[in-house]
Amino acid sequence: MSSTGGSGEPPVLLFRKVDAAFSAELRERFRVLDFFASGEPLQAFLAAAAAAPEPPRAAVVVGGGAVRVDASFLYAVPSLLCVLSTGAGVDHIDLAECARRGVAVANSGEVYSTDVADYAVGLLIDVLRQVSAAGRYVRRGAWPVQGDYPLGSKLGGKRVGIIGLGNIGSRIAKRLEAFGCVIHYNSRKPKDSVSYKFFPNVHGLAAESDVLIVACALTKATQHIVNKNVLEALGKYGVVINIGRGANIDEAELVVALKEGKIAGAGLDVFEQEPKTQAELFSMDNVVLSPHVAVFTEESRSDLRAHTIGNLEAFFSGQPLVSPVHADFLVQ
Amino acid sequence: MSSTGGSGEPPVLLFRKVDAAFSAELRERFRVLDFFASGEPLQAFLAAAAAAPEPPRAAVVVGGGAVRVDASFLYAVPSLLCVLSTGAGVDHIDLAECARRGVAVANSGEVYSTDVADYAVGLLIDVLRQVSAAGRYVRRGAWPVQGDYPLGSKLGGKRVGIIGLGNIGSRIAKRLEAFGCVIHYNSRKPKDSVSYKFFPNVHGLAAESDVLIVACALTKATQHIVNKNVLEALGKYGVVINIGRGANIDEAELVVALKEGKIAGAGLDVFEQEPKTQAELFSMDNVVLSPHVAVFTEESRSDLRAHTIGNLEAFFSGQPLVSPVHADFLVQ
Repeated sequence: MSSTGGSGEPPVLLFRKVDAAFSAELRERFRVLDFFASGEPLQAFLAAAAAAPEPPRAAVVVGGGAVRVDASFLYAVPSLLCVLSTGAGVDHIDLAECARRGVAVANSGEVYSTDVADYAVGLLIDVLRQVSAAGRYVRRGAWPVQGDYPLGSKLGGKRVGIIGLGNIGSRIAKRLEAFGCVIHYNSRKPKDSVSYKFFPNVHGLAAESDVLIVACALTKATQHIVNKNVLEALGKYGVVINIGRGANIDEAELVVALKEGKIAGAGLDVFEQEPKTQAELFSMDNVVLSPHVAVFTEESRSDLRAHTIGNLEAFFSGQPLVSPVHADFLVQ
Repeated sequence: MSSTGGSGEPPVLLFRKVDAAFSAELRERFRVLDFFASGEPLQAFLAAAAAAPEPPRAAVVVGGGAVRVDASFLYAVPSLLCVLSTGAGVDHIDLAECARRGVAVANSGEVYSTDVADYAVGLLIDVLRQVSAAGRYVRRGAWPVQGDYPLGSKLGGKRVGIIGLGNIGSRIAKRLEAFGCVIHYNSRKPKDSVSYKFFPNVHGLAAESDVLIVACALTKATQHIVNKNVLEALGKYGVVINIGRGANIDEAELVVALKEGKIAGAGLDVFEQEPKTQAELFSMDNVVLSPHVAVFTEESRSDLRAHTIGNLEAFFSGQPLVSPVHADFLVQ
């Protein structure tokens, strides 16, 4: 087992590749048991950790599902009382089982919210105004040989339906208001704090929106929340943006809708079988494809480091976690 | 000479390709003398128009300089009293000569302002967050084979220096405020209506900005307003966005600065020798290249049609033009 740090520091399981700065800050404070560095199979790694003289009470787990914190994981290390996701999503963590075992869970809180909201707006402008596609047109020498690039579609005045008005969705709304968009939303229940029009279901939202933005967590309730019927309700001038999780959309139906012109375009930072994308989309200029980078900035990486260490220090000093996630975590 | 329309309607010179809807609306109201449809050389076309029994008093001219309304143009058609640019820029129109001859000039007013502002923000998000470049990475199958795409740079907190706080620049500022940017600006004089920090010169603005956005008109005073010294003041983490005119930037120096890493990136919708671009930029992933489409939406095209006809009808009925441009039109 690969571990570093002074023998006096509490052990922490690490299931994420971290950069040198993050690694150094962790190792100053904790005895890091690094799964990816260990080269061991998961169950062997967990068994060794559990059998150590001081079994670990906390784990840091990358978002996105490379390692799943499910019942068998938790069973293998019964000493665990704290699981921190370094992503906003916790769909890779069995929250019910954590709650049953008294394991506290936290996520990245608001560390990524502004970057993801910015990126969602960037994807939307790109799809409507064809920034990436027009750029490829220039780079292949087509301009002006093949004429002006076709007209795009104006952002101002668009009715934007946001699915999930949480930390990210509400920031997207605030940004798009500045562009003159009309904001609609769907969430578990109406929010008193906003005057946007609430839709109790996504089909109704799609029917009265020009753009759908998926900004909800992935749960059983939100898997394929954008399905064939929703895409049909959105219609042939409609655009879908996804900065949530790939499985929030029925991707096979999305590809069909794009191929058949049943919607106008899409901007996708996430994919259902990630990192597998859909090669059929590669030839479509009305689709912006992005390699799950909506959270990726130098600044958010640094913020995440401070936030994760803050959550760990809170846990080990018996304080409440900075960004706790509860078992009823659902679409916001 | 190609002309249509009833003999009772006033003749209008047209120096722009227009779509069917625009053409139909013009021809309902005016006798259109269409330069591009005529196939004639410019001077012959102008001479024939001037020699007609009812010489034209108004001309509609495309922005961007394909046709220059200079002294020889105006001399050739002394009947002209109104020149309408269908672009926001009027750098292709000799305003001093127009004023001397009593020729009223109008531009596209605010028709394009929101679309251009939206596009500027889109370019900025794209450069900072690498949307286009990451998209190309996905489309060539590099993800995840070659690993995650590198981290971008956060938009929030960036100090954005806007050159020209007119119809477009002020809309860019409003949008970027919603992203948490700090707005600085340079213009002829400070604006009482805003609390942004004013810089009397662009070098000072660049030195205290992370991003420079060119949103001014092209005039003698603003040609190469972003030069080698300004780029050096902006520095190696700086980004330049240009949705003004190509010649607002010393493009040769910009290419050098990008090649040598003296600035971090650029988003360019306009080029100095347009439509000639700079092929050296095609291989740079930190540059977003765009084929002068910041004004290109279905909606703005329709708005332009109504706006141009509004200006023509105002002129022919002796009313003030909707969006007059005066001879002292300079950086805003």
